[in-house]
Amino acid sequence: MPTMSDPETTAATAAEIAAEWMRAGSILILTHERPDGDAVGSALGTAEFLRGCGKRADALFPEMLPKRYTGFARAARFEPLSPQMCATYDLILVLDCANPARIATGGMTLHDLEPASCRVLNVDHHRGNTVPGAVNFVDSTAAAASLLTFEIARLTGEKIPQEAATLWYLGITTDTGSFRFANTTPRVLFAAAELLKLGAEQEKVVNAVYFSKPRNQQLFEAELVEKFLKVTDDGKIAYAVLPEEFPVRHGFDMRDSEGVIDLLREIDGTIIAVLAYQRGGEFKFSFRSKERSFPVGPLARRLGGGGHEMAAGATMLLPDAAAAEEFILNNVPGVLQIESEK
Amino acid sequence: MPTMSDPETTAATAAEIAAEWMRAGSILILTHERPDGDAVGSALGTAEFLRGCGKRADALFPEMLPKRYTGFARAARFEPLSPQMCATYDLILVLDCANPARIATGGMTLHDLEPASCRVLNVDHHRGNTVPGAVNFVDSTAAAASLLTFEIARLTGEKIPQEAATLWYLGITTDTGSFRFANTTPRVLFAAAELLKLGAEQEKVVNAVYFSKPRNQQLFEAELVEKFLKVTDDGKIAYAVLPEEFPVRHGFDMRDSEGVIDLLREIDGTIIAVLAYQRGGEFKFSFRSKERSFPVGPLARRLGGGGHEMAAGATMLLPDAAAAEEFILNNVPGVLQIESEK
Repeated sequence: MPTMSDPETTAATAAEIAAEWMRAGSILILTHERPDGDAVGSALGTAEFLRGCGKRADALFPEMLPKRYTGFARAARFEPLSPQMCATYDLILVLDCANPARIATGGMTLHDLEPASCRVLNVDHHRGNTVPGAVNFVDSTAAAASLLTFEIARLTGEKIPQEAATLWYLGITTDTGSFRFANTTPRVLFAAAELLKLGAEQEKVVNAVYFSKPRNQQLFEAELVEKFLKVTDDGKIAYAVLPEEFPVRHGFDMRDSEGVIDLLREIDGTIIAVLAYQRGGEFKFSFRSKERSFPVGPLARRLGGGGHEMAAGATMLLPDAAAAEEFILNNVPGVLQIESEK
Repeated sequence: MPTMSDPETTAATAAEIAAEWMRAGSILILTHERPDGDAVGSALGTAEFLRGCGKRADALFPEMLPKRYTGFARAARFEPLSPQMCATYDLILVLDCANPARIATGGMTLHDLEPASCRVLNVDHHRGNTVPGAVNFVDSTAAAASLLTFEIARLTGEKIPQEAATLWYLGITTDTGSFRFANTTPRVLFAAAELLKLGAEQEKVVNAVYFSKPRNQQLFEAELVEKFLKVTDDGKIAYAVLPEEFPVRHGFDMRDSEGVIDLLREIDGTIIAVLAYQRGGEFKFSFRSKERSFPVGPLARRLGGGGHEMAAGATMLLPDAAAAEEFILNNVPGVLQIESEK
């Protein structure tokens, strides 16, 4: 059986992944650090599905989950990964994670696990995925890893339990911004419809994800809009640079900031949104584009980051908010020029 | 041919409505006052579809449309209704309007039109619809009038042009809060998927509806959240009472306030949201519920208003903001008690 560092990786099909799932007796699921809705939904949804098939299956979250997702975590293990733990599973399934350095393990790298004789499956929807699975299935046309894992599960012909449908629905709705982002294709909407027919608890998902904003987050967002949000003179770029003290003052944890960038993206006439926030000596940048002709993926990759063409991010060492703003004003307008030069 | 005041109304089927559409050579479409996305989408989408079938079809908007919808109004007539105008159409199709007094005509009532020998079709998704059509098709299980009109169009077997698909998609996404509200059923998601397959311009719709917020609206909303939004001590009711000067000071037109109530609904733990704003000597109330067991429709109807079970509204004569707040605190908690008394 190949080990994790096995250099021979294959570009598998969804059917081959389905067969791998069905062959394994026990599966440990890993996803990316700072898990978002799709990481949570795909990992826990797949764990619920596999449990429904009579297997031992767990999704590992070494970090705390954002509060809004804690009500969905029945199939989670909250502890760091260890070689001993790996040895008790037939298969390690890495979901929704393009970069091996970003797999949430609580400290280890895949390389540390080398002696463990357990097979790694890599299933993802990010372009440029470099996770070295023994088997790799990357479909960057899919809006969400939750969509892919649902589609794989369907291929098995096994029953899809309500819990899995709910979690996959959670992942699909979060990664598409509730079906508003450019990745909302007929495939996404058909899958979402089928998940509802399978009993996905839509009210529970929607209330947790969209209608459970803590009041302090609302006040944080209101001040962000009033004091930190800026729009360039041409009206095309909305950005905000948040110094470290600002979320702290509101008691707001930036790990819960999925969706905050929509405050920038929602402004009339803007094409690109950039949210930057300070954490220690660095700034975390999120980039969003509203028009397919001006992707932000290339900029993020140039900065050593990643993501999708319309939604990407990167981390930069910068001394202060002024430097982060200067960085934005020097680099982001180029995203809009690229198109006109084509 | 029955006239508008013909007391004999029939509960028609979707297929009968489709047949009526196909028989008519010219159709004028009316919808409700202060048109929202579904009024706009169903009226203009149906007009585009009927034009594609070679008919003369127009959607009438005596009022200005909210700015975000103006880019979709190719099939609109912007003028008041007159008997002379009616006489030039075979059919008047009233869409998405439950109450004859709220049909947007620019002054007239259906009764004023009595001499015009033109047939009125009433197609809607609001419970308790009292529009006196010669033929009436009301399906309150449908999330949107745009969904109903799309379904009727499909029954004709005629080609659905891209423009119609875009407009029906617009209506469905707005009436379901981008597929977040409790009315988001498999039927809704399947229809939305099919509309995308028919070429509905998702990016155009989404950018117009969700990502075209004027900066002054953002600042209006930020101040609303900071200064006007209150939550009852038990955490279950979020409300805001807006005096007339407040939107005026931000240059914000309350006709564009569709969606503003989501600022109240989104708060963690709340079940009911109430937004009230002053206009002249009265207050307009919007009610939203997040849980099917606590509908707000009955309260709105008791106040002489209407809407759906989970999203409803009413208008009240009240002297000032203090009276409106008192009204809320005296009446809205009852919505939550009803259930516990059952």
